[in-house]
Amino acid sequence: MSDTFARLAEVLEARKSAAPDSSYVASLYHKGLNKILEKVGEESVETILAAKDAATSGDARELIGETADLWFHSLVMLAALDQHPQAVLDELDRRFGLSGHAEKAARPHN
Amino acid sequence: MSDTFARLAEVLEARKSAAPDSSYVASLYHKGLNKILEKVGEESVETILAAKDAATSGDARELIGETADLWFHSLVMLAALDQHPQAVLDELDRRFGLSGHAEKAARPHN
Amino acid sequence: MSDTFARLAEVLEARKSAAPDSSYVASLYHKGLNKILEKVGEESVETILAAKDAATSGDARELIGETADLWFHSLVMLAALDQHPQAVLDELDRRFGLSGHAEKAARPHN
Amino acid sequence: MSDTFARLAEVLEARKSAAPDSSYVASLYHKGLNKILEKVGEESVETILAAKDAATSGDARELIGETADLWFHSLVMLAALDQHPQAVLDELDRRFGLSGHAEKAARPHN
Repeated sequence: MSDTFARLAEVLEARKSAAPDSSYVASLYHKGLNKILEKVGEESVETILAAKDAATSGDARELIGETADLWFHSLVMLAALDQHPQAVLDELDRRFGLSGHAEKAARPHN
Repeated sequence: MSDTFARLAEVLEARKSAAPDSSYVASLYHKGLNKILEKVGEESVETILAAKDAATSGDARELIGETADLWFHSLVMLAALDQHPQAVLDELDRRFGLSGHAEKAARPHN
Repeated sequence: MSDTFARLAEVLEARKSAAPDSSYVASLYHKGLNKILEKVGEESVETILAAKDAATSGDARELIGETADLWFHSLVMLAALDQHPQAVLDELDRRFGLSGHAEKAARPHN
Repeated sequence: MSDTFARLAEVLEARKSAAPDSSYVASLYHKGLNKILEKVGEESVETILAAKDAATSGDARELIGETADLWFHSLVMLAALDQHPQAVLDELDRRFGLSGHAEKAARPHN
């Protein structure tokens, strides 16, 4: 599953010190937290619309792309607030008993 | 970063054949896609509110918990539409050139 | 078209001094602004889902009900922040040149 | 409270037969329902952020403007689905007993 989020977090951290016009992410940081949160909201709505369309059409490509946008902008949000995605994954592990106990996770317990 | 999403995807797949009242996720599947998408929308708004509060208070615990809720319900959405989170991570890898090319990712290119 | 919003604003103002458990609105005020804004977000997503379903089914009853929920909770939000819906309607009149100049409004100018 | 919504509904209806590039609304209709619903979602998030900021700053001008955007785009959505805002206002009247019974509305009954 991998290190996608960990690597992205590194890239996002590096962009913090970049010039505002050097990349999309650098410009987002520069515009401030409200603009980043607007993007999280927008991508969430676009994901929801893509999910409705995927359920009708059977084609999930748009849904995959919009979910990628949603996760990406939530990583930008975390970076802007100096939080690492591992803290969120740890919370999910904790809630679902996934911390090295795969067998436990298989039981319906949430 | 781990296999949190991969393990969760396995759990979510297993819950599909569970009785509606056997777990929270099984009941969500049973209520249907609209209810799952309402949860994605709700958790997105709660994440946004928690981010605003974290920026003011300096305390990010609520933000971590709400982001976990948001990612979790987007995983449930993917499972409900028979999609695997790896497809989303692959899309992120593809966009950000993270597929084994860390050096490329360091350059501002998005 | 009328006084629906003006009358509702009056009701919502009166509920501010009511006991928290005396009505749904009084309990919302008591829970605070975040809870009210969560409801605005939730009803917005439910409106969007109802619009998608109305476009497919041709039945708009759910859409009318969800839009009523959305407008209602935005009125609660305005009341909680001591704002009157007339200020929003004045802004719309101003933008669309509706202040007694119906003929102007007919021209594409926004 | 006025006829703002009724007049806007007339304008929005007239724009349906206008050329796509003749106005903002005509271009929205042309882009289709998903684009209109994305705008409803965006404006809802911007309203929520403006409400948080108004609560901190005491300045509600941004909130008034964003709420105007939210109501406006929900009117565009209704028009795109051939619904009139009066149906929503009737639903609110019905729920809150406002149909000519102001005295009833004053009692906490929802």
